[in-house]
Amino acid sequence: MDIQNLIQQIEKKRSMLCIGLDVDLEKIPKHLLNLEDPIFEFNKKIIEATQEYCIGYKPNTAFYEAYGIKGWKALKKTIDYLNEFYPEQFTIADAKRGDIGNTSTMYAKAFFEDLNFDSVTVAPYMGRDSVEPFLKFDKKHTILLGLTSNQGSEDFQFLKSNDMLLFESVLRKSQAWANSKQLMYVIGATKASHLKTIRSIIPESFLLIPGVGAQGGSIKGVCEFGLNDNYGLIINSSRGIIYASNQEDFAEKAGLKAKAMQKEMEYYIK
Amino acid sequence: MDIQNLIQQIEKKRSMLCIGLDVDLEKIPKHLLNLEDPIFEFNKKIIEATQEYCIGYKPNTAFYEAYGIKGWKALKKTIDYLNEFYPEQFTIADAKRGDIGNTSTMYAKAFFEDLNFDSVTVAPYMGRDSVEPFLKFDKKHTILLGLTSNQGSEDFQFLKSNDMLLFESVLRKSQAWANSKQLMYVIGATKASHLKTIRSIIPESFLLIPGVGAQGGSIKGVCEFGLNDNYGLIINSSRGIIYASNQEDFAEKAGLKAKAMQKEMEYYIK
Repeated sequence: MDIQNLIQQIEKKRSMLCIGLDVDLEKIPKHLLNLEDPIFEFNKKIIEATQEYCIGYKPNTAFYEAYGIKGWKALKKTIDYLNEFYPEQFTIADAKRGDIGNTSTMYAKAFFEDLNFDSVTVAPYMGRDSVEPFLKFDKKHTILLGLTSNQGSEDFQFLKSNDMLLFESVLRKSQAWANSKQLMYVIGATKASHLKTIRSIIPESFLLIPGVGAQGGSIKGVCEFGLNDNYGLIINSSRGIIYASNQEDFAEKAGLKAKAMQKEMEYYIK
Repeated sequence: MDIQNLIQQIEKKRSMLCIGLDVDLEKIPKHLLNLEDPIFEFNKKIIEATQEYCIGYKPNTAFYEAYGIKGWKALKKTIDYLNEFYPEQFTIADAKRGDIGNTSTMYAKAFFEDLNFDSVTVAPYMGRDSVEPFLKFDKKHTILLGLTSNQGSEDFQFLKSNDMLLFESVLRKSQAWANSKQLMYVIGATKASHLKTIRSIIPESFLLIPGVGAQGGSIKGVCEFGLNDNYGLIINSSRGIIYASNQEDFAEKAGLKAKAMQKEMEYYIK
């Protein structure tokens, strides 16, 4: 997908909302467990009920891999369903991959070709040659971990070297990599106080913002310093929306939660 | 697997060799492509021909994910085959995963429970709460990226903060995490000159050493400063062994390469 299509979607839907499809069989409504593929059926219903309020979906691969081949099949069915019925949605494989060049190419093929996601999240620790293979794919986007939403982000991401924090080095150095125009960055909503500095380093890049809701970040906090001329924000919520109810009305309740978040975001869309 | 079993294997086989099962359908012998599951058939033959010379196998998940469900099935069959016929082999899922706590637990389930690997490689960027969920599993091992073998390792891993390089901080801090006894570390063979310092920080930990052979590292260089009282080294070779030939004799040639590496390692075993 082109960035222009994403921006159009944001304006059309008046939303920057992305919904995390992190399906845990212990948390979904019990009546779905008797179906042949409860994970896919859950996703399908959630997507149908929320798609008018959001601009993207982000399955986290951990939740699918945990169920083995059955899980991988459900992931494949979910992305195929999105690509067939809602091709306007920006799809993110939240996989946090990264390996030596040769191997990163295989990961890129997995997510961009075999599964046909629009984007994939990638970890920066191994540096340039672990990320550039992802950037070679046309109309696909690589979302590099910058500053994450979890507590452990303080262990290494804030280490200061040459007057720069590690996550700032990641943002700055990666801007020099081949096809860096296709880079987006993960910035946790719980770290909104750093957004002003972050925007001074990467003014134009789209940011994927997890951590709103269950993890404690706020839409207001993120928009205040994170927005740019193209909006530049994809704000994710997972548990807060998809587990709004674990009863028969789960999809309806998820739709209402998504709508409420869209309403809160509308204020920031031109 | 207990560490004691691994040490016994090293002494029994007089080897520290681990073989990377990174199967690329474009590189394997053409005659296998007509079989129903060429990836698994290739692995099976490679394992049969090399198992007496090595103490572990390390499939890199990227190579399986690139082939979608077919690939994931081949990975499952490979690990099941190893666990059934060669349970003494130390198995490593080279997956380089890592995510917020809740999600890392799902990855741990995927590799330790569903697939039943002995160990998994994990990326440190997200810090403590992204790694500790892996450490909760009994008799399973987490292999944290320390200093990697690729060129991009220089981008961030060598940034100096408080007189410590980033990879040194990773080694040092992670030693304070819960169940850190179950931690091993990835240290690239191409970075053998740092092994003396590394051993001063983590004298007792096992190190997984990729980068011997195709990438330019040497067994001698690694052993000189990397060995400890329990050997403490798992030395990996992938391409150099599994693609020794792409003809009908591929397994035999892989066996010979593995044997040659084992012979070189024997010198360092008591």
